[in-house]
Amino acid sequence: MTAFEQITDDLAAQAIELPSWAFGNSGTRFKVFGTPGTPRDPFEKIADAAQVHRHTGLAPTVALHIPWDRCDFAVLRAHAEENGVRLGTVNSNTFQDDDYKFGALTHEDPGVRKKAIDHHLECIGIMHETGSRDLKIWLAEGSNYPGQADMRGRQDRLHESLRTIYERLGDDQRLVLEYKFFEPAFYHTDVPDWGTSYAQVAALGDKAVVCLDTGHHAPGTNIEFIVMQLLRLGKLGSFDFNSRFYADDDLIVGAADPFQLFRILVEVVRGGGLNSPDVAFMLDQCHNVEKKIPGQIRSVLNVQEMTARALLLDTEALRAAQVSGDVLEANAVFMDAFQTDVRPLLAEWRAGRGLPADPMRAYLDSGYQEAIEAERVGGVQAGWGA
Amino acid sequence: MTAFEQITDDLAAQAIELPSWAFGNSGTRFKVFGTPGTPRDPFEKIADAAQVHRHTGLAPTVALHIPWDRCDFAVLRAHAEENGVRLGTVNSNTFQDDDYKFGALTHEDPGVRKKAIDHHLECIGIMHETGSRDLKIWLAEGSNYPGQADMRGRQDRLHESLRTIYERLGDDQRLVLEYKFFEPAFYHTDVPDWGTSYAQVAALGDKAVVCLDTGHHAPGTNIEFIVMQLLRLGKLGSFDFNSRFYADDDLIVGAADPFQLFRILVEVVRGGGLNSPDVAFMLDQCHNVEKKIPGQIRSVLNVQEMTARALLLDTEALRAAQVSGDVLEANAVFMDAFQTDVRPLLAEWRAGRGLPADPMRAYLDSGYQEAIEAERVGGVQAGWGA
Amino acid sequence: MTAFEQITDDLAAQAIELPSWAFGNSGTRFKVFGTPGTPRDPFEKIADAAQVHRHTGLAPTVALHIPWDRCDFAVLRAHAEENGVRLGTVNSNTFQDDDYKFGALTHEDPGVRKKAIDHHLECIGIMHETGSRDLKIWLAEGSNYPGQADMRGRQDRLHESLRTIYERLGDDQRLVLEYKFFEPAFYHTDVPDWGTSYAQVAALGDKAVVCLDTGHHAPGTNIEFIVMQLLRLGKLGSFDFNSRFYADDDLIVGAADPFQLFRILVEVVRGGGLNSPDVAFMLDQCHNVEKKIPGQIRSVLNVQEMTARALLLDTEALRAAQVSGDVLEANAVFMDAFQTDVRPLLAEWRAGRGLPADPMRAYLDSGYQEAIEAERVGGVQAGWGA
Amino acid sequence: MTAFEQITDDLAAQAIELPSWAFGNSGTRFKVFGTPGTPRDPFEKIADAAQVHRHTGLAPTVALHIPWDRCDFAVLRAHAEENGVRLGTVNSNTFQDDDYKFGALTHEDPGVRKKAIDHHLECIGIMHETGSRDLKIWLAEGSNYPGQADMRGRQDRLHESLRTIYERLGDDQRLVLEYKFFEPAFYHTDVPDWGTSYAQVAALGDKAVVCLDTGHHAPGTNIEFIVMQLLRLGKLGSFDFNSRFYADDDLIVGAADPFQLFRILVEVVRGGGLNSPDVAFMLDQCHNVEKKIPGQIRSVLNVQEMTARALLLDTEALRAAQVSGDVLEANAVFMDAFQTDVRPLLAEWRAGRGLPADPMRAYLDSGYQEAIEAERVGGVQAGWGA
Repeated sequence: MTAFEQITDDLAAQAIELPSWAFGNSGTRFKVFGTPGTPRDPFEKIADAAQVHRHTGLAPTVALHIPWDRCDFAVLRAHAEENGVRLGTVNSNTFQDDDYKFGALTHEDPGVRKKAIDHHLECIGIMHETGSRDLKIWLAEGSNYPGQADMRGRQDRLHESLRTIYERLGDDQRLVLEYKFFEPAFYHTDVPDWGTSYAQVAALGDKAVVCLDTGHHAPGTNIEFIVMQLLRLGKLGSFDFNSRFYADDDLIVGAADPFQLFRILVEVVRGGGLNSPDVAFMLDQCHNVEKKIPGQIRSVLNVQEMTARALLLDTEALRAAQVSGDVLEANAVFMDAFQTDVRPLLAEWRAGRGLPADPMRAYLDSGYQEAIEAERVGGVQAGWGA
Repeated sequence: MTAFEQITDDLAAQAIELPSWAFGNSGTRFKVFGTPGTPRDPFEKIADAAQVHRHTGLAPTVALHIPWDRCDFAVLRAHAEENGVRLGTVNSNTFQDDDYKFGALTHEDPGVRKKAIDHHLECIGIMHETGSRDLKIWLAEGSNYPGQADMRGRQDRLHESLRTIYERLGDDQRLVLEYKFFEPAFYHTDVPDWGTSYAQVAALGDKAVVCLDTGHHAPGTNIEFIVMQLLRLGKLGSFDFNSRFYADDDLIVGAADPFQLFRILVEVVRGGGLNSPDVAFMLDQCHNVEKKIPGQIRSVLNVQEMTARALLLDTEALRAAQVSGDVLEANAVFMDAFQTDVRPLLAEWRAGRGLPADPMRAYLDSGYQEAIEAERVGGVQAGWGA
Repeated sequence: MTAFEQITDDLAAQAIELPSWAFGNSGTRFKVFGTPGTPRDPFEKIADAAQVHRHTGLAPTVALHIPWDRCDFAVLRAHAEENGVRLGTVNSNTFQDDDYKFGALTHEDPGVRKKAIDHHLECIGIMHETGSRDLKIWLAEGSNYPGQADMRGRQDRLHESLRTIYERLGDDQRLVLEYKFFEPAFYHTDVPDWGTSYAQVAALGDKAVVCLDTGHHAPGTNIEFIVMQLLRLGKLGSFDFNSRFYADDDLIVGAADPFQLFRILVEVVRGGGLNSPDVAFMLDQCHNVEKKIPGQIRSVLNVQEMTARALLLDTEALRAAQVSGDVLEANAVFMDAFQTDVRPLLAEWRAGRGLPADPMRAYLDSGYQEAIEAERVGGVQAGWGA
Repeated sequence: MTAFEQITDDLAAQAIELPSWAFGNSGTRFKVFGTPGTPRDPFEKIADAAQVHRHTGLAPTVALHIPWDRCDFAVLRAHAEENGVRLGTVNSNTFQDDDYKFGALTHEDPGVRKKAIDHHLECIGIMHETGSRDLKIWLAEGSNYPGQADMRGRQDRLHESLRTIYERLGDDQRLVLEYKFFEPAFYHTDVPDWGTSYAQVAALGDKAVVCLDTGHHAPGTNIEFIVMQLLRLGKLGSFDFNSRFYADDDLIVGAADPFQLFRILVEVVRGGGLNSPDVAFMLDQCHNVEKKIPGQIRSVLNVQEMTARALLLDTEALRAAQVSGDVLEANAVFMDAFQTDVRPLLAEWRAGRGLPADPMRAYLDSGYQEAIEAERVGGVQAGWGA
């Protein structure tokens, strides 16, 4: 059995969740460009996401964002299944309502906090309808000016709010708390780092875990170290994959620093996080200037390719070099896996499984893009905030 | 004559231009919050800006942004003068038109470049109507993915486009080229640093200069060094003042790092840039969560207070310590100016000039805010993109 | 009672520990400059440190670094007391022995780990002799190249090593674990962030706490947030104060960003950390180009001045503005405390307590500097690594 | 002719200069570890450097550092030629003399400036002896505290000093001015960015150019953009290759971010800088924990591998995608070149040229390392500062 053959079971088991919002328009504070064929409702988003799975076999589930994807969830669930995918993580939203200008789960006003908590309880209800396991919470809360907010009080209120939500989780449901270095708040953010997210979820219990978004760190942060640490602490619940050169650029995963993605996946494998039920792989990206469905295809393929390289790492040779203190040999073994061009082997393997050898080409040749660009005329294109 | 009395002529001469867009709504890609009383047109923006000048005596001119402020400029000019202010710098916009998705002055397509150039020629025409001297160009151009763009070709096309615009400037007009580290482009930006802006304007001629936006640098950049260098090279044309903790946060100038603002102003004074006709002081900020008129009042006062401290620096004692290599004494002289609480002296001096001792209090007591909140109902609030 | 009079008890209680190594030579990898009068042994370091306390009343204890300060500790303790100070925190060193090239407490080799553990047990023994409470551990461990080290295994071994040390602590002793973003390791550091330090000390028990060095964070990190969080979690054991523009520059505390120091001290006060037995204030700086004793005097005065400003914060007015969502008023109250020039009041108060109104001037006039420069000739100057 | 065959002429012409100091010991401010076999003098350094060229064919010249490599240069030159290499760039040193504590070419004291200028004139004399073309100047000058230095005056003095040196250059000699973001100075650095270096060398004349050290930028800086810009301006004189995760880590080139190295080399090729007489390729690294000769072999191979990938870029397909605005296709073409595993083809090509297919293995099997470890006992190992 070749080295590649030894890893195909792991590759076959890999699943990467797509975010419904990746198919809508997105942009910067300066401009959101519209694109032909953009979905107008959750059903069209699911249809688009299903295209990614059809051509790659990598993306069997789609995450929802509430309220953007509010609809009859039983119908949406059936629609997804007809399209060969399932509904996944439910993401709450506490950043687009005027009431949340100064916070939601941390707000000084108990009335606003109750509104935000109730929104999460609604999400839990939706999870029962959609069959989703995870409630993912990203908090945009924080402040822009020193003195504006009482950071300590907010942290305590955050705990109280999360506890109220946590207590309503079903037995098989999880609360996944994301952290982010900055933006949209520019002085302080209430969950700015993995330490804060970890401390908050550890105070809740076993069903609360951390979401690591690869774009949400300070410049220079060694992200794979955090992956290692959270796996070690049993609290890595999910990834939001994307990439960045500067801030939270939300570019295609693996586009900015492919070697970093490789290193992250090496630690995932090292720590038992690959294909583990405890660790969900998700994308969270913005396709501001590129086409959205091909952008998602490129993304899941990037994760797959780096996973294959990570799995091909000769861990025995690596350990031997590490134990003997042979820095250059250890690095060489590590780089050898990274340098391996796995694309031909993956293409062949894909073809053997009834998938297109070249998923991107297959999608572009399928006529789907032309069809949606022709059909989806009129109505309001989906996007952030709609 | 006290030390403070020796600097009052300089203080009296200080003028800080306000951006018309600071009075409209702004926000992040996640949400733009609306606020009561927000202007619906350029006339209301000018009226609001005039309030800042009325209470501080610091802000006699208002910068325009085209196309956001398009109107009958002769009427707008008269309106400004009636309100006690003048129209200032004209800012072009090449980032909110669908044609500019992949560039404007640098675009591969000569047709798009011509459109962008023509827009600037229109701005020059407007400058003749408004009596403005400066055409300020901030370019949002760049790319998000390696390989997406030919950076070299774009740089050459940028030169050609700027030259065409430059040649149409009137004798007393200037082209001011801003640079920015990143955003909205996330891989490369066509004018990312002062070096690029400097090389481009140096290739044009004497009427082309650099705009330094205090929020547009990499983390850790010593901005006052750049101020010194551009003054030394004779190419510092203007400031866009704001402040930041992370990226281009566009917070109130002096809010994030007051000591940095002091150091910048020390170099301005050192290099002859204070109250020089060559160096325009402007604000460029976003009041996402705070009230806009008070936010602008706070901003110009921050600049004034730090200017006073910079002027109070005992430059003789400083030079003596520098020459003798007495690090701690030099730093102590420097910090002594920074630590001086100039607010009581400024209040007294203001009162002696017929201005309110406490401009913020005077504005809040004036009833203006309540009036605009009551009157400006209906219509479309101004903001980025409107 | 004036606002200032209300805070003098807190000011009188303030104590800042000095590091013995601040009086030795330090520098960068490029050059360590020698200076006249530099101590040649621990006794001369203590004598110098005592000068800081004599003139400021702020620095009653001196931290030791083992092995640099190895000597007869009973004699050193008596020497300190004769000089009016006490011995404080004991700092271990696992970065200057050839055996530690690839780690100490985390090393692959159990023999090296044992050596490193034994060194810490020796330090605990010294603490009994010196009367010290805290064992401070800064780990230089990490790796320079991806693949070089098994980060996960190292983390587990770190826990085991720390546990062995922890179990040997006396009832009134503490283990204080410092974290650092990078340097001397350039790919991964075994305790790179507060989250890792927190997770490690939480796994040990109540006598293990975190040390926050103000220069050991990623660019842009909101340090006062971490102060707030660690106080909230009951795990902020001590500060290493210094300041930075870029990396771990180890400049005089408050020199690079005085406003940041103010914000940190506001959170210390807010969280009950000021003059708390649980939170030790220490300096950890390098005086590469400035004189060392005056550098330390400047440092403790900077902390005192910012503490005074933090204590003068009108917390009632601040809370009112925060609760009402008045961003500008909250920030104004906050800035008002920061802008207050407390130096004249502090000088007067000092004089009233039998201390020099101007400690720096008093030291410079004392003749001590001239005396040590004349006397300390010959021998080996102390420094990092000696 | 295959794609690879079309690039072999370029590969055959490639030459990367080695720094003599890479073979000596280096470290951080915390510790310099010694290693067996480290050279004790310039002759042993040259012998080691020759090993890298022998096994790779990539490193025909060795850069010298004065005063570290002072000796009889005629003898050294002959020694180099006997070992199959030549002497290259001469690097000056103005950071390890006590006189330079507060500057060298920028110092307030004309006497210190003259000393520093004279040192450079000595270097020019050495260049005549060694047959070197380039005088490379890296300035460690700057200040640690705001107010310590008059940045403007220093910039003017820098110009005067450089002009004096420039005027003494021979007809075929060049002055190459390096820039660096920070370290060893921690507040301001006199040549901190490419803009400053460019402005300074442009003021001198055609024989003055810029050196770009890949580790000397702010976090997030797009280095390939600077490469493009300096080539466009005709001022890119040389590279100092290394890599970094945080600051100026001086790791093996390509180790931290191989994709960045690829992007840089794509711009080198795009701008005509590959194998151009105008652009010198050099390494400048520190092998703190890894073996030095193998570290250098790994480094030149990394540059060669990424050069091959850059040369394999399908520039026609790339241009077509760029012109048509097909973001994903352009990026795919770009990534396709990066993902190509060129190592087997390079090994085969090397073997066909009489070089070892696996240079690292060949070196390790050669017995050289064992020989120098056995022979070089006693004496003082070379290193920074010796």
